Amino acid sequence: MMSSIHDVCGSVLSHIPGVGSSASPEHGKVLCVGLACLDSIHVVKTFPVEDTDVRCVSVRLQRGGNASNNCTVLSQLGAPCEFLGTLSKKQYLSVVVDDFKAYNICINNCIYYEACDAPMSVVIISQTTGSRTIIHSNKNLPELTLDDFKKLDMSQYSWIHFEGRNVEEVVSMIELVEFWNENHISEHDRGHGLGHKALPISIEIEKPRAEMQDLIPWADVLFIGKDFAEFCGCTNMSETLKKIAQDAKPNATIISAWGEQGAMARGHDGTVVQSPAFCPHKVLDTLGAGDTFCGAAIFGLSRGKSLQDSIILGCQIAGIKVGMDGFAGLDKACNHIMYGSGEL
Amino acid sequence: MMSSIHDVCGSVLSHIPGVGSSASPEHGKVLCVGLACLDSIHVVKTFPVEDTDVRCVSVRLQRGGNASNNCTVLSQLGAPCEFLGTLSKKQYLSVVVDDFKAYNICINNCIYYEACDAPMSVVIISQTTGSRTIIHSNKNLPELTLDDFKKLDMSQYSWIHFEGRNVEEVVSMIELVEFWNENHISEHDRGHGLGHKALPISIEIEKPRAEMQDLIPWADVLFIGKDFAEFCGCTNMSETLKKIAQDAKPNATIISAWGEQGAMARGHDGTVVQSPAFCPHKVLDTLGAGDTFCGAAIFGLSRGKSLQDSIILGCQIAGIKVGMDGFAGLDKACNHIMYGSGEL
Repeated sequence: MMSSIHDVCGSVLSHIPGVGSSASPEHGKVLCVGLACLDSIHVVKTFPVEDTDVRCVSVRLQRGGNASNNCTVLSQLGAPCEFLGTLSKKQYLSVVVDDFKAYNICINNCIYYEACDAPMSVVIISQTTGSRTIIHSNKNLPELTLDDFKKLDMSQYSWIHFEGRNVEEVVSMIELVEFWNENHISEHDRGHGLGHKALPISIEIEKPRAEMQDLIPWADVLFIGKDFAEFCGCTNMSETLKKIAQDAKPNATIISAWGEQGAMARGHDGTVVQSPAFCPHKVLDTLGAGDTFCGAAIFGLSRGKSLQDSIILGCQIAGIKVGMDGFAGLDKACNHIMYGSGEL
Repeated sequence: MMSSIHDVCGSVLSHIPGVGSSASPEHGKVLCVGLACLDSIHVVKTFPVEDTDVRCVSVRLQRGGNASNNCTVLSQLGAPCEFLGTLSKKQYLSVVVDDFKAYNICINNCIYYEACDAPMSVVIISQTTGSRTIIHSNKNLPELTLDDFKKLDMSQYSWIHFEGRNVEEVVSMIELVEFWNENHISEHDRGHGLGHKALPISIEIEKPRAEMQDLIPWADVLFIGKDFAEFCGCTNMSETLKKIAQDAKPNATIISAWGEQGAMARGHDGTVVQSPAFCPHKVLDTLGAGDTFCGAAIFGLSRGKSLQDSIILGCQIAGIKVGMDGFAGLDKACNHIMYGSGEL
């Protein structure tokens, strides 16, 4: 059963550049930078034992990739959004592109490669546990470059989110956004009410790889996945927040989500807030649950909600997602949370 | 290291219809009836733990399916052969058809379906153990029918092998072969040296399903896989041979192969012969090892080799196969066995 959010309270994140309770209803796009891939999803009764031969219950192809999934969630929650990444023209392009269009996600600035294989994940979903086991392959599709990123018109966006990959180039892209913020930040943000707002930068760090640590100092909002936290030697969310804060920007917001343990976050002033997980009656499909949490929390933060409200929203929407197959219909399934209480 | 076969001795299987030491070098085709599918092969360092996210070492597409693999092996050993089954025109047809052609396997009598999905197996191969874990899906491709089978010109073949599936129709097909044998069996086979030889029928029973038991009484040569043997309550090869003999034709040859335990077989007179497994220095890829054993043993038997020589050949060729990725080059790798001693 879903928990209630009646007891939620929290403070407005006015320390995040460009975000505040006064956020206008005419929002710029949320830009999510990272990977789009094809997920070949194989639903089995139970996760197979090594060296056996089992039969699928069902198979489906689904657009996947973290930043791509973030957009799927943001769009369904009502945020105009854009995916930026590289795409293969050689394989499955129409499957991926048609699905972006079906979810009203802008891909106008994506970079296409003719002769490269499409990144692909085989995903085994267990009907018994809802677990998703991912075997990813990416043979030769190049990563996004700084030059690709330079072509963007930054004034279109209200938030820029990076998936933690392609570290060196992503750092250069963030430097470019910071430069843009320095040169276009409004007098309003300086107290005079004119021009643009500064673009907040969020980064999701999930993969347990050492180079990901280099991304920590660059974000206004950090999403730290359980795998990376454990890789850093942390055994719980509380430790994760403390550990990551040592290397993060002084004013950074740090969010740690640990699946069925819910999420915990540390605000710019060190205040820690928490949300339980909201488990559905039956867990069906946990593929993209972390991406859903992240997308929904960004939605909350970018609309000026408090840090606590935002992570609760993330956990609630992720809880709804894991109770359904894929992402189709998430918008309708979330209606009672988004509009039922009139809070968002 | 490969074991030697110098100590091999065995008796000619003159009880199998159409087979004897006098087999002519102008052999009819071996027909293998069953499934061709596309194997999407994902090589990983170690088999993934449930609910983790791992990266492939490599990915490849390969034509698979038991009967299809049997043909790959038979053809490389030098036997003219034909695959008979249904194929999807909707997906991956050229991948499958081109590969059949590359291995010189006749598919002239295959049945094509326009709007059905191609059967597909996701195969996870562990570099650490060489294990192959198969997740198979077959959404809606129809099985071969008796009417499809009726169109064959039986006089082209020297052996008919059935993969254990589609049980009811396969039994009808075998009845048709038996009818053909009754009506076309040569005076030679009756002792007068004219006309056709009777067509031997082999069946591979691998899948642990109750309906497979209905196939047991229909074969001249039975290949009983470990999974089916265990499903029948057998704990070793010796028990398997005794158990299956209770329901098999009185003169049937029964072959039981148990991977790294090698193979054991029971001839028409109850004599039991055995072969060890021939493990390569490093096991790389066990996908299709059972199909390789089966194809190579059929090759031996159909060329009039003894039961013992045939199962030793099966184990040797399967041992070579698991030491390499896929099937390409199996012919060259087997040269020293096939022609080195001049025995075959």
